[in-house]
Amino acid sequence: MIDARPVGYVIGLLLLILATSMLLPMAADLIEGNGEWFVFFESAAMTWLAGMSLALSCSNAVRDRLSLQQTFLLTVTVWVALPIFAAIPFMLGATNASATDAFFEAMSGLTTTGSTVFSGLDDLPAGVLLWRGLLQWFGGIGVIVMAMVFLPELRVGGMQIFRSEAFDTMGKVLPRAAEISAQISTIYVGITVACALAYGAAGMNAFDAAVHAMTTVSTGGFANYDASFGAFKGPHEYIAVIFMLSAAIPFVLYVRLVNGDAAPLWRDSQVRVFLAIYATLVTATVVTLILDFNYGVETALREALFNVASIMTGTGYASVDYMQWGGFAVALFFFLGLIGGCAGSTSCSIKVFRYQILFAAAKAQIRRIHSPHGIFRPRYEGRPVTDDVLNSVMAFFVMFVVSLGITAVALAMTGLDFTTSVSGAATAIANIGPGLGDTIGPAGNFAPLNDTAKWILSAAMLTGRLELMAVFVLFTRRFWLA
Amino acid sequence: MIDARPVGYVIGLLLLILATSMLLPMAADLIEGNGEWFVFFESAAMTWLAGMSLALSCSNAVRDRLSLQQTFLLTVTVWVALPIFAAIPFMLGATNASATDAFFEAMSGLTTTGSTVFSGLDDLPAGVLLWRGLLQWFGGIGVIVMAMVFLPELRVGGMQIFRSEAFDTMGKVLPRAAEISAQISTIYVGITVACALAYGAAGMNAFDAAVHAMTTVSTGGFANYDASFGAFKGPHEYIAVIFMLSAAIPFVLYVRLVNGDAAPLWRDSQVRVFLAIYATLVTATVVTLILDFNYGVETALREALFNVASIMTGTGYASVDYMQWGGFAVALFFFLGLIGGCAGSTSCSIKVFRYQILFAAAKAQIRRIHSPHGIFRPRYEGRPVTDDVLNSVMAFFVMFVVSLGITAVALAMTGLDFTTSVSGAATAIANIGPGLGDTIGPAGNFAPLNDTAKWILSAAMLTGRLELMAVFVLFTRRFWLA
Ligand SMILES: [K+]
Ligand SMILES: [K+]
Repeated sequence: MIDARPVGYVIGLLLLILATSMLLPMAADLIEGNGEWFVFFESAAMTWLAGMSLALSCSNAVRDRLSLQQTFLLTVTVWVALPIFAAIPFMLGATNASATDAFFEAMSGLTTTGSTVFSGLDDLPAGVLLWRGLLQWFGGIGVIVMAMVFLPELRVGGMQIFRSEAFDTMGKVLPRAAEISAQISTIYVGITVACALAYGAAGMNAFDAAVHAMTTVSTGGFANYDASFGAFKGPHEYIAVIFMLSAAIPFVLYVRLVNGDAAPLWRDSQVRVFLAIYATLVTATVVTLILDFNYGVETALREALFNVASIMTGTGYASVDYMQWGGFAVALFFFLGLIGGCAGSTSCSIKVFRYQILFAAAKAQIRRIHSPHGIFRPRYEGRPVTDDVLNSVMAFFVMFVVSLGITAVALAMTGLDFTTSVSGAATAIANIGPGLGDTIGPAGNFAPLNDTAKWILSAAMLTGRLELMAVFVLFTRRFWLA
Repeated sequence: MIDARPVGYVIGLLLLILATSMLLPMAADLIEGNGEWFVFFESAAMTWLAGMSLALSCSNAVRDRLSLQQTFLLTVTVWVALPIFAAIPFMLGATNASATDAFFEAMSGLTTTGSTVFSGLDDLPAGVLLWRGLLQWFGGIGVIVMAMVFLPELRVGGMQIFRSEAFDTMGKVLPRAAEISAQISTIYVGITVACALAYGAAGMNAFDAAVHAMTTVSTGGFANYDASFGAFKGPHEYIAVIFMLSAAIPFVLYVRLVNGDAAPLWRDSQVRVFLAIYATLVTATVVTLILDFNYGVETALREALFNVASIMTGTGYASVDYMQWGGFAVALFFFLGLIGGCAGSTSCSIKVFRYQILFAAAKAQIRRIHSPHGIFRPRYEGRPVTDDVLNSVMAFFVMFVVSLGITAVALAMTGLDFTTSVSGAATAIANIGPGLGDTIGPAGNFAPLNDTAKWILSAAMLTGRLELMAVFVLFTRRFWLA
């Protein structure tokens, strides 16, 4: 059996951090002169108490390092434990949410999915809006650290291809994961501050600028208004595009840039392919908007740049109801969401490097069909892809598609229609935010769904954010016997 | 450059067979006293002339065997050339179809897809209905021979896993592909006759029994009535279930059965998994129909058995408009169609053995995550799966999903809505027949689609039927340089 106590200890410490962070929305409500501040005080106290009890009761079993099993258990349970406590303010506060709705919103926040069950956002107190933004912001940095430090070590979903890159190349400069995490956190804070300042310069008030910067840089997509980013037309959209795209690029490249080596950023094939796909789809959308919908050139360009970036990076802001852009845009946005950004960023979904590896493998396979006795190895960034990485990526892709199918059928069983079921499953597993159709499309929200559907979606968000395999490993008998 | 003449010679011979087979619908129209007979006479003459010219002009280059390149070229061009000539009667005859519609219907017939652009089927002359049935019937046997003889040799989509099985095991009994083909054809004829007799015994007239037997055993799904199989409620449906399921089982197992070895049929894991999935989904559908839709037990059982078999085997008959069965049934039927039957049968889609291999690979991958230094090899039928097979299957799966996405977006670009685009792409690539939604759902047909959409769907049917890779190979520069 696995000794779960070291895992409990780490979760206890993280709950203490979560409790402390609840003081920020408390302060926001106090400043606004809002009675709601007490909700965050209560929630902080409960979370602090739980974290402290857990940490103390487990502290006697703490060792220098975690075993492989413990690391898996930690990776998954963190993303279940934190949303439970993060949900408390949503239940007690102005949103007065049911346990289901509160957990859904917290999970949607921390996984940076950004699907919301709340409406009337414009009238909510500052504290709860800040709390939603903070959850996404913490989720975003959590995802990067997980993708750079944990997943490569756990050999999940082909992420091991980035193992040597992250550790060996920088081995001389940054010997330990903690140091990388610290550097990345600094960069993450820096980009967020830059984004907030730019939003402020474009005319957002300080509070909106701060919250939207947090949900932009985390590619989370929560907004302070029911109109989502539609509340900020014009220059704000261009700024958002720059920061959404920046957040979808591997953060390790920024670390190298800061350490004086800009070459990797310009040469990285994943970044190039990502930007090439983006440019192509923006062009197609611009042409459609101008020719079929008589948009002016600036409007077409702005809406295309913004909405394609929003879906492709998995941010999920809407600035217009693109359900109105006809079948082409709808189908495009559905499949676009299944591409995603780059690995090691805050963005989600299948990700560009996996498509690069899968296409390289398919190409090698076609060559092998031609010349049955030839040896053809798929390559990534010029280096041959090992069987281990290739199998991991393919297993990931298969499980992604199968999970999407099973989730969609499960959602349909709860009574949802075809478009809502299929797009809901996709938006949750790929952590995008909005779905398609009248209910969960960019003009709607997730409140009208039944409770079962909300729990299914919550589980799908978690599974997708943890790159699937990290979750599925826990469902094997072998895991618990090891 | 490839010498295309041997390919032209074989296609010429096949066109002569196609021309000869046009005499059957001609006879049917003559018996019915229908002036339409002349259309088939004309079409036969044209096709015969083209076939003879092609065969004669290429005959001087015929060698003992085809090269790998020539085999690929043959496999693909056969499925383009035959529909062109098979379409002639649809243009000249009572259906008076445009070139686009006629080609779509012929391609849909020969690939055993069964999507139709014709309505008013009930009033069409016997000849054209028989022609539609014959196209599917020829397509069905063509698919089995291709899957057993050509694709394993071409190492396409993991079909090479059946190579040794088909040839080595039976090597003593049946040394050559031609002999296997002959045995399989005999079995195919036998099953078709049995099906027709059963339909006749249940009350169909001789003509309907013959045509529907042909479209059942080929899992094609063309019907003689606008109501599809809804025109034959009750016992006919149970008979159809038995023969649709029989047609979705590897025909090599019947060859062995006829040769006195029944064990492979009972022990084959692909058949077991196929039937297990079928039983599970029938049960779920029965429960839904009884509880949510107040069906009687017999009706629920019959409709579930029939419609689940129809979609899963890719036959695509509808006996009811299952769009009325709510989101659950619709989403279930969508993903069900992406499972398909067994390899080496007339059925289509991704097929059960590929899922078995993919799941075995994912399981091995999860074990490898546990024990990074262990060696875990996926197994199929107790034997380790080679890297070549595994990579082929995975490449197939990736290309299937990516093709589905690209086809759906292309359809949406022609102006179709989301549900029609996505389900149309799936039903074409998986050769099922009906889609979802008001237009192409079980209660509608493909006539209202624009011409571009029909050509896209025709290309998708062809690509899906040839297991994708056989087509994609032709689009590589290397292929034409070799
Ligand atoms: K998001
Ligand atoms: K079919």
